[in-house]
Amino acid sequence: MRGKLFVLSGPSGVGKGTVRAALLNDYTDILYSVSATTRKKREGEVDGKDYFFVSLENFKGMLNNDELIEWAEYCGNYYGTPRTYVEEKLNQGYDVILEIEIQGAEQIKKKFPDGVFVFLAPPSLNELRSRIQKRGTEDACIICERLKTAEIEMDEMYNYDYVIVNDVINNAVEKLKAIIIAERCKIENYK
Amino acid sequence: MRGKLFVLSGPSGVGKGTVRAALLNDYTDILYSVSATTRKKREGEVDGKDYFFVSLENFKGMLNNDELIEWAEYCGNYYGTPRTYVEEKLNQGYDVILEIEIQGAEQIKKKFPDGVFVFLAPPSLNELRSRIQKRGTEDACIICERLKTAEIEMDEMYNYDYVIVNDVINNAVEKLKAIIIAERCKIENYK
Repeated sequence: MRGKLFVLSGPSGVGKGTVRAALLNDYTDILYSVSATTRKKREGEVDGKDYFFVSLENFKGMLNNDELIEWAEYCGNYYGTPRTYVEEKLNQGYDVILEIEIQGAEQIKKKFPDGVFVFLAPPSLNELRSRIQKRGTEDACIICERLKTAEIEMDEMYNYDYVIVNDVINNAVEKLKAIIIAERCKIENYK
Repeated sequence: MRGKLFVLSGPSGVGKGTVRAALLNDYTDILYSVSATTRKKREGEVDGKDYFFVSLENFKGMLNNDELIEWAEYCGNYYGTPRTYVEEKLNQGYDVILEIEIQGAEQIKKKFPDGVFVFLAPPSLNELRSRIQKRGTEDACIICERLKTAEIEMDEMYNYDYVIVNDVINNAVEKLKAIIIAERCKIENYK
């Protein structure tokens, strides 16, 4: 049986990276597809584990060679998902999880309509604003742009299959794991 | 928001009672609707916890007063789900789980089309036969009837939302818990 593709997305600042990292730490039964990005490495991030950190030139090369199944420009940086890894692993029967921005998730939905789309939501918009401001890895201009984008992105929630409110990290991780396990029990997999 | 109704069913002998009891032992975030039955109490079973053990006369009285949302005759015994508890708790926003026979689950599906239907399946038909024979709480005639019924009941699987193969109890319980948690994250709940 072909593997399932899980897509974890949600507005900027909601904590996608933290939830994804905590899931994979605790749960080895799914493969993580590492995205490529042109944005600067944040403290603590590891090249090839959190992202493939690439130059703009390299990123454009991947795009031109159709090596990305989704890509997005976000606050002046590019993000994309390398095609080969995802398709190979799904064909081999492994489940794969992507952690990507909202724009990218929309592209994935067109190419993988059977994917399972999980929206990570903040407890409130105020909380989201405060998280983006606290992160402090970006300059004021980027923070402002992220805030505006995040509010618009909240409206995308209704295009997803599941919503996880990221109030407490451990709860969010438990819910994500539950969604993965439950999806494997769906009757569709037995037909 | 109204609570969700979860229905755990599957062929006789598959281990529904064991899985349900283990779930409730570990997980207090769902209410169990205790069924009424005219069958004899098995060793270790507690009246009012595992079943309401009632006389045939009492059972028929409940039926005549429309006090059961489903009922079934099975190997000469009657089983049914009292209406009041389920409807009250769902209206109060609690999730409720029923553990019932296949015939009863079909009736529930008509009355609660939004219910979540989970089919507990044996690893194989041979394994199911061996479990029914080993249980040893019924006489040979009932065992024989249970075996025949169980095979027919396996075909019902495709009318369910989820399938859990009951190979190892703890895994089955973890999956059932995951289904409950995942169902609560579905986007439908936010619309």
